[in-house]
Amino acid sequence: MDNIIKFLSDVFGSSNILTEKEILEYYAYDAQPIKGEIPLAVVFPQNADQIREYLIYASKHKIPTYVRGGGTSLSGGAIPLIENAVVISMYRMNRIIDVVPQDLQARVEAGIAIDELNINLNKFDLIFPIDPGSSAAATIGGAIAGNAGGIKAVKYGCMRDGWVLSLEVVLPRGSIIETGTRTFKAAAGYNLTGLFIGSEGTLGVITKATLKLVAKPKRAVVIRAYFSHEREAAEFVVKLLKTGLDPTAIEFLDRDTLEAVKRYSGLEYKGNAMLLIELTGNVKEDIEKRLDMILDMLRNEGAIDITWSKTEEEYQKIWMARKAAAPSLSNIKPKYLVLDPTVPISKLPELVDICKRVAAKYDLIIATFGHAGDGNLHPNILYDPLNKDEFEKVLKAAKEISIETIKLGGTVSGEHGIGLEKVDVFKVEAGKEKLDLMWEMKKLFDPNGILNPGKLFPREYWEDFWRV
Amino acid sequence: MDNIIKFLSDVFGSSNILTEKEILEYYAYDAQPIKGEIPLAVVFPQNADQIREYLIYASKHKIPTYVRGGGTSLSGGAIPLIENAVVISMYRMNRIIDVVPQDLQARVEAGIAIDELNINLNKFDLIFPIDPGSSAAATIGGAIAGNAGGIKAVKYGCMRDGWVLSLEVVLPRGSIIETGTRTFKAAAGYNLTGLFIGSEGTLGVITKATLKLVAKPKRAVVIRAYFSHEREAAEFVVKLLKTGLDPTAIEFLDRDTLEAVKRYSGLEYKGNAMLLIELTGNVKEDIEKRLDMILDMLRNEGAIDITWSKTEEEYQKIWMARKAAAPSLSNIKPKYLVLDPTVPISKLPELVDICKRVAAKYDLIIATFGHAGDGNLHPNILYDPLNKDEFEKVLKAAKEISIETIKLGGTVSGEHGIGLEKVDVFKVEAGKEKLDLMWEMKKLFDPNGILNPGKLFPREYWEDFWRV
Repeated sequence: MDNIIKFLSDVFGSSNILTEKEILEYYAYDAQPIKGEIPLAVVFPQNADQIREYLIYASKHKIPTYVRGGGTSLSGGAIPLIENAVVISMYRMNRIIDVVPQDLQARVEAGIAIDELNINLNKFDLIFPIDPGSSAAATIGGAIAGNAGGIKAVKYGCMRDGWVLSLEVVLPRGSIIETGTRTFKAAAGYNLTGLFIGSEGTLGVITKATLKLVAKPKRAVVIRAYFSHEREAAEFVVKLLKTGLDPTAIEFLDRDTLEAVKRYSGLEYKGNAMLLIELTGNVKEDIEKRLDMILDMLRNEGAIDITWSKTEEEYQKIWMARKAAAPSLSNIKPKYLVLDPTVPISKLPELVDICKRVAAKYDLIIATFGHAGDGNLHPNILYDPLNKDEFEKVLKAAKEISIETIKLGGTVSGEHGIGLEKVDVFKVEAGKEKLDLMWEMKKLFDPNGILNPGKLFPREYWEDFWRV
Repeated sequence: MDNIIKFLSDVFGSSNILTEKEILEYYAYDAQPIKGEIPLAVVFPQNADQIREYLIYASKHKIPTYVRGGGTSLSGGAIPLIENAVVISMYRMNRIIDVVPQDLQARVEAGIAIDELNINLNKFDLIFPIDPGSSAAATIGGAIAGNAGGIKAVKYGCMRDGWVLSLEVVLPRGSIIETGTRTFKAAAGYNLTGLFIGSEGTLGVITKATLKLVAKPKRAVVIRAYFSHEREAAEFVVKLLKTGLDPTAIEFLDRDTLEAVKRYSGLEYKGNAMLLIELTGNVKEDIEKRLDMILDMLRNEGAIDITWSKTEEEYQKIWMARKAAAPSLSNIKPKYLVLDPTVPISKLPELVDICKRVAAKYDLIIATFGHAGDGNLHPNILYDPLNKDEFEKVLKAAKEISIETIKLGGTVSGEHGIGLEKVDVFKVEAGKEKLDLMWEMKKLFDPNGILNPGKLFPREYWEDFWRV
């Protein structure tokens, strides 16, 4: 152990290593409820060469290694699962290397927070549009590793959908590669960039990224509407998406979520479900016309208490209900487990029904909100951590919702990743053939299995390497 | 050989195999000028199981295997390079399995032509927007294998950018996998779908695809403008892209191309370069406003003889100049080699200059047109096949343009693929480290190297398996 610490100190510098037990405990947590192992040390690299040197050593000595961005993972992506692990925090590799507005591109280090990047892009009238809820802390590198989505994915897609042009990645074999080129298109060899996006830190350490940017829309309006039945709101989403009216966001909040927000911030809601629909663009007449068409649709489909933002203040106020959704849940029960089921969009009403049915079956409160426009909902199963029996039920309910999602042609994770807590249901979704193939790819990139051990793959895969 | 033919006949049925030498010769060609080897046989599978059975046999007996879609590859992607090969033509696996308009999805067999799919989507007011120039014959499977782009890539991106939700792929190991799920988002395991997109038939045989569709825009207008200097046109493209006015297509034609089109169809062009800019949308006021803004920009930036389509007839007529570009080149010289350099968009003027400079240096005609909005141009180097010395110069000029493209941070292929004819320059672009890694991935999926041998990787990689 002392040898490892000395090596880390030599490579990263003594001011870039944490070894105090009390501080290390923090690194056993991320944004989901399960606690991992306390690491042996946390290091803060300042360049890819240090990581390269470390990975050669770690491969040789088989040191379990966990890379951490903003620590905002909702699937346990960042926490150690093996004892005496090293955590690589990307916190100090957070520079913007360059912004090239005439190329609509930025080159950044992996540790920069998404909001921080966008603040810097403001003066160029550009945005990086992938916008997960945790963007204040979530890093570009972490968001790439998890194929992050977020509220604007209806319009812009997720990380994988053309926003990452190239990556600098350090591989456990001790090489530093640059994937892709600084072009919007490429048909030149295997899509290594796309392979690292969503690989959850199991194939290599992402140190830099070249990102595609877009012009910042000059205008935005958000519509709020309530529905008497949750299913009606979900059905409206399906109809809206077929129109080609190009919404930027379509968010759904169910009754349990609305009730939590009411207790938290005094929201006076109607009915049993809320939809928030955002339109963005540059042309006033265009937004007004699309707004009118959507308002007409809402009225025809029985929405109640429809309103929309006429000022920036109203815009912020309407969005507040959605922003308060997650924080407000603790007013109902102290903790929650958040799921990430995603279905073909026409199955959204069924997914809403499933959440309600499972809640009733296990006598749990499941507050569901999320990115209805992508078929992606976040059912939050509320619980009291002091009640052991209740948590058992939470896990059963979570599994049931995920399995029903698979039956609808969906996936257990639209944007949070598998991490540690969806491993069992991912096994059902992917099946043995595909898992075996992915595992062979894992072994090709990381023969000693040192990167993020215990995650993504079911336990039996890791047992070759580690007793997890 | 007879054993192989008998096996093929047993597996695919005697009516689904071609062995007549005269017909087989056709399969030594695709849409680029170099002739490959005449195959031993061509088979027309009707389902994935037949292909599975064949691949097990071919792996065991080490039969070089080439998968062919529409045969429209501009990089030699479809032609055999090893003697006594088997060509798998996807021609008879061309069904639409289902269209689910409420999910904005279609499920198709790989052999369907892109235009054929879009004709069938018309009644749903939906389109599949990836639109390569060869879409009348190019198949979905081939377009996926090559990460096709096309004229609308400015707005919609390429195959890889979210349009392929899942794939059925037959692997040489004898398994049939289904990648991805029928959802718009997924963060569940490695991006196998994205890995197969652009893998040029070297990793597996794509048999089915689930595609994302979009609502068909109700309105379209195309603007045509000329510029005195080719560089000015390229500079205008850079300015336009920064505005966020969301063009669907921005096409560039240089003077040599305009001259060819003039001889072919009587086009009365002005200046030395043409830009075609398409806007699409649903709202009349929106298109009119964006049109006005772009017309103002064009006038301010010195464009000449600006016009735009007011009717469907004018729309077709204006686009005709671009559609005639490739066919018209044979009015200047009998043959051409088409390149596919792609650069960061601000480098477009430099890329145009490079093409002109190389043409002058080698005393060749290089007619350049293409997808300026993506930074992707197609320099067409014209030649007379009876003039051997000229073809030597063509190859030197091609290499020089590709190498200069790499120096600009670009790629040697934006959408045509590496195939056989860009292998040398791809080696320079990717470098040994990345090529080695890609080759290890190739061996993982196809340990006997039977799929598309001789392509994508430089000769020395293939020599382990084949003398190419």
